Amino acid sequence: MSIIDSATKTVVRDYTVEELKDQAALMRGYNLVALCAAGSGHAGGTLSIMDITAALYLSVANHDPKNPNWAERDRILWSGGHKAPALYVGLAFAGFCNKEELVTLRKLYSPFQGHPHWLKLPGVEASTGSLGQGLSVAVGSALASRLDGRRNKVFCIMGDGEQQEGNIWEAVMEAAHYKLDNVIGIIDENRLQIDGPVCEVMNVAPLADRYRSFGWLVIECDGHDMEQVVNALNQAVRNEGSGKPTAIIGKTVKGKGVSFMENIAGWHGKVPNFDELVKSLKELGVEEKIPYLALLDKAKGYQTEVERKLDAKMPKFSKDYWWNTSTTMQAAMKPTRMGFGESLSENGKDERVVCLGLDISGSITISEFYAKHPERKNRWFSMGIAEQSATAAAAGLAREGKLPVLGTYATFAAARNLDQIRVSICYGNFNVMIAGAHGGVSVGPDGATHQALEDLFAMCGLPNMTVVVPADSVETRKATDFLLLKHVGPKYIRFAREATPIISTTDTPFEFGKANVIRLRNESKNFIEAFATELADDYRNENEDLSIVACGPMVPEAMRAAWILKQEFGYETRVINMHTLKPLDRRTILKAALDTRVVITAEEHQIGALAWQVSHAIISSPALFDVPVITGAIGVKDRFGDSGAPWELIKEFEVSAEHIAQQAAALVALKKQRIEATEKELEPTLSLR
Amino acid sequence: MSIIDSATKTVVRDYTVEELKDQAALMRGYNLVALCAAGSGHAGGTLSIMDITAALYLSVANHDPKNPNWAERDRILWSGGHKAPALYVGLAFAGFCNKEELVTLRKLYSPFQGHPHWLKLPGVEASTGSLGQGLSVAVGSALASRLDGRRNKVFCIMGDGEQQEGNIWEAVMEAAHYKLDNVIGIIDENRLQIDGPVCEVMNVAPLADRYRSFGWLVIECDGHDMEQVVNALNQAVRNEGSGKPTAIIGKTVKGKGVSFMENIAGWHGKVPNFDELVKSLKELGVEEKIPYLALLDKAKGYQTEVERKLDAKMPKFSKDYWWNTSTTMQAAMKPTRMGFGESLSENGKDERVVCLGLDISGSITISEFYAKHPERKNRWFSMGIAEQSATAAAAGLAREGKLPVLGTYATFAAARNLDQIRVSICYGNFNVMIAGAHGGVSVGPDGATHQALEDLFAMCGLPNMTVVVPADSVETRKATDFLLLKHVGPKYIRFAREATPIISTTDTPFEFGKANVIRLRNESKNFIEAFATELADDYRNENEDLSIVACGPMVPEAMRAAWILKQEFGYETRVINMHTLKPLDRRTILKAALDTRVVITAEEHQIGALAWQVSHAIISSPALFDVPVITGAIGVKDRFGDSGAPWELIKEFEVSAEHIAQQAAALVALKKQRIEATEKELEPTLSLR
Repeated sequence: MSIIDSATKTVVRDYTVEELKDQAALMRGYNLVALCAAGSGHAGGTLSIMDITAALYLSVANHDPKNPNWAERDRILWSGGHKAPALYVGLAFAGFCNKEELVTLRKLYSPFQGHPHWLKLPGVEASTGSLGQGLSVAVGSALASRLDGRRNKVFCIMGDGEQQEGNIWEAVMEAAHYKLDNVIGIIDENRLQIDGPVCEVMNVAPLADRYRSFGWLVIECDGHDMEQVVNALNQAVRNEGSGKPTAIIGKTVKGKGVSFMENIAGWHGKVPNFDELVKSLKELGVEEKIPYLALLDKAKGYQTEVERKLDAKMPKFSKDYWWNTSTTMQAAMKPTRMGFGESLSENGKDERVVCLGLDISGSITISEFYAKHPERKNRWFSMGIAEQSATAAAAGLAREGKLPVLGTYATFAAARNLDQIRVSICYGNFNVMIAGAHGGVSVGPDGATHQALEDLFAMCGLPNMTVVVPADSVETRKATDFLLLKHVGPKYIRFAREATPIISTTDTPFEFGKANVIRLRNESKNFIEAFATELADDYRNENEDLSIVACGPMVPEAMRAAWILKQEFGYETRVINMHTLKPLDRRTILKAALDTRVVITAEEHQIGALAWQVSHAIISSPALFDVPVITGAIGVKDRFGDSGAPWELIKEFEVSAEHIAQQAAALVALKKQRIEATEKELEPTLSLR
Repeated sequence: MSIIDSATKTVVRDYTVEELKDQAALMRGYNLVALCAAGSGHAGGTLSIMDITAALYLSVANHDPKNPNWAERDRILWSGGHKAPALYVGLAFAGFCNKEELVTLRKLYSPFQGHPHWLKLPGVEASTGSLGQGLSVAVGSALASRLDGRRNKVFCIMGDGEQQEGNIWEAVMEAAHYKLDNVIGIIDENRLQIDGPVCEVMNVAPLADRYRSFGWLVIECDGHDMEQVVNALNQAVRNEGSGKPTAIIGKTVKGKGVSFMENIAGWHGKVPNFDELVKSLKELGVEEKIPYLALLDKAKGYQTEVERKLDAKMPKFSKDYWWNTSTTMQAAMKPTRMGFGESLSENGKDERVVCLGLDISGSITISEFYAKHPERKNRWFSMGIAEQSATAAAAGLAREGKLPVLGTYATFAAARNLDQIRVSICYGNFNVMIAGAHGGVSVGPDGATHQALEDLFAMCGLPNMTVVVPADSVETRKATDFLLLKHVGPKYIRFAREATPIISTTDTPFEFGKANVIRLRNESKNFIEAFATELADDYRNENEDLSIVACGPMVPEAMRAAWILKQEFGYETRVINMHTLKPLDRRTILKAALDTRVVITAEEHQIGALAWQVSHAIISSPALFDVPVITGAIGVKDRFGDSGAPWELIKEFEVSAEHIAQQAAALVALKKQRIEATEKELEPTLSLR
């Protein structure tokens, strides 16, 4: 069976093995065109899984593209959500969606999110992207089928590196315990993950033995031999009645089909440029069959429309204040994460420092620890994609006097392991540094699953934890230096992926737990020179019109807002760089409230981690009881992220300087209006004096 | 080797197998005396592991009780922290601490916490209690030993049910990957866990095969045959050089040594009463060797001193207002969790409802779903101790139209699985209900690891999530009814363990997202009758002196505070039952701020989940810009919990009505003083009118 008309239960289309091979080549081509148009994504894994995808979507699985929620359909779950483009071409080739639309991949508002979202695209069974959860969803789905007396299969596509996640083994156990012989796990064993060969990052072999010992049937096959693939899938389907779930281990090649991508770990999270695309399409023999120029044009057209929509939504001022759009106020850009790597490279010389890798070591710069210092490799522990265990292991290292550093995307570094952070690290009060990378929506096209917008809630809430969110790469360097070597106890540092303005120098003060005040002095050629920064404790009130309390890369946005407010309204702004969120510099907040009466918080996070604490500090202060103060909050408004370009998302999620300035102007106007009203009311009194 | 003088490296004491048997019997006895004195704890597992404990602490492990941090010592990690009393008797018999002190187990301020805390007791290597983390700590410790060139062993004691935690399999992988042949995992295979036989709750067999397939050496032995135990441990020690970690699977009997406890799952989390203790000591042949009467007296003396200390710390008023200490204002007590079970028992008739068990199903009352309805067993899925997978599986069930309910202690239900809740449930916007049980310090003697004090930070922070914290068992019932059948989307309900006052009836309004106002009308025989409750939207301002916004069992405390404030100061209090934390009833908060100017929040949680949001709602409101308002916050002050009796902890952590009243009195005084001052300042104005 395969593509079905669910009304008549007849097969609409089936494919021979030869046809499937052709389809797979075409699917690889469309996949690469979409990736090229997106400018980011995962070429390696989408190519390794493509033959299995073709067999599954076009020949083995029963489904009806006209009726994507047909109850009797086979479910296909993509646990490794980063292979979404393969899923999308699978759906497109089966008829669920239009092949031509695939080039909107990873663009703002597109149904083709960086990681699949079932609410955006019919045919997607679940929203995935955080590894290791899909097989559990499959277990739930299979249990539901059993309850409802349905005979559908539940396929779940996983990676081999993904097998490092403990979550998987819980699901493996459960599928066997419940004798879910309708569950078919497919492992795309391409032997490479981001940090290198799976066997070096964290060995998972022998996978077949492991699955068997957990009570599964195992079928091994060449994942690129279409006949073997189809046979393996059909054999797994026939295992129904065995009382055992089936694992198909497909031996594959990462980057399969494109000579210069094959077996190269670097192509995990990389996409072809135009020349590489053309070369790839030729190698695949599909250059003539795919209208790639027209498709790339279509992508450009979509992108133009996105930009128009976004622009229409932005607050408008008398001129364009966007980063580096005028000849003055030029800002140099560098990702905050770089400061982390620089610090590790330097401070790694301390023999107590050990670093734990979680398979995305390059992009979060933790690998700088050893990059120029091969002798430190003995203090580098690759732990695989296993956040829970690495976190508790860090506690074990700290118990022995080491200074462990642990890092991954903040969505994983502060959530998959929250209880391990709580119990093993914070309750034990261990000297562990956790780096939460890729904080905020500015992560960009990876989308919601990879954009940490809630991590600070949990981290600020833990006793014994300290939390620092530096404003630029220079400050990240200083913060890492301090936290790593001087601060005793658990610590969380959060930084971002995208290049953001450098707004400090090595001379700028950085004192843990003490905010800085930043004041616009006059427009300047270079953005950084337009401002004066000092330690808040040293700052003397200038009766500014408002204060903006910001952290992380929202500090440069707050500074730019100060510029807009000065230019457009003549308002003076006290920008407060609240780099330390825990412990919070309450004194500086109270002073700002007293002096300026309008306090706006700015965080690239769900509103609250900073906003709520600042508001509470002010309104719970007896000294400010009868001082009229209002707070405003800029941040993400209780919604999940989205795919898109980093700076587009800053606009879409209303966390730009323009949004700060707009809100600030309204609140300062309110203040002035109310104070005038009060003064009018008090006039008789005043005239008496 | 064994107990060593680390200075001279000589053996201080070693034991023959016969002597070890005697010691194990005595250790069982002291263990049971401590448990009896504590009145809570885990008899079953401490008895099953005791022979291994005796062999390890008295004969196999090298350590020096006089120098507990001796660098060369063998480390012993107790991953299953609930077996803490066995660890404590192990330490006491090896000379690390005093046998006589063991009877302070689980009492307030005792070093013998319900789950072990290394900062409180020398010889404890790590703070554990949340299952499945210990082996990872062992991996970290072993890596440190290797780095530092030490040859010590790292033992890790685990349970068999605990093998359901995916965290364990991550650690198993890592230990093999790093060829940590100094790691020795010991599995106390007593075949029972809280919910029943391990093979039924979630099968983990064949454990030996599973460990071997993950690259470990495996030794199986009878965990109660002392000779076999000693041999197995010594053989594991000799495996150094093999390049493989060793697992010792000790076949044991839960409750071993006491006939009426053996092989009975019910004795997992149960302790002997006095008669059972005496009977047990006789069976163990140690009745004459342990001065149990004197020890129990010592425990009583310690407890008296605890109560004296606590009493001295409490705010004092003209009389005692504590629950049910006078003839009036009598409150009926019932744990909030009961309302959850009652709702499931009733609403489980809806065929869409499915419940997922996580091995503590009785105490959190989720098992009421099927308790009186055996026909529902097909919709009951025991998932074992595997929070991550159960959470994602719930998403899979919801995807298919089911109404899954998932519950465990809130420390695990909202932390171990945070990313699964975020991605699989909230991002997918699935109709899953998560029950976070045992919220707050009133969990009692289990201590910090089991007291959820941070769960609401994470849960309130998630987009699409709704959060309800009902005030009593009656409201828990209503909230569960509503959330389960009427609310579409992810939902988190939090309830408590201890019996707390019933303050509502079936007639009391409960509207999701809408607070209730509760007003003290007059003292009454029954507490509940002294108050009038209505929907906040219907309530008309009475110009009260203050408002208290509370959730969960802090609502009755707030009501009692209202009583104290009326009696002692003549103050009128608007008590607001903010049962829904997300979405928050902002309108009711703003009205309270405007009408009463003093708003105190009360939460049995780290201060902030409620306090910060309430403060932010008020101070960010333009309508209240020039209205003087102050907020106060009652809650846990950024510290971890502790062992102790539930109501003692309410006092120790300053979350009682007395603490609310004390803070309220101070803030109302401040308000009155400031308003008087303002009135004086305005006098000339007023005289003009």
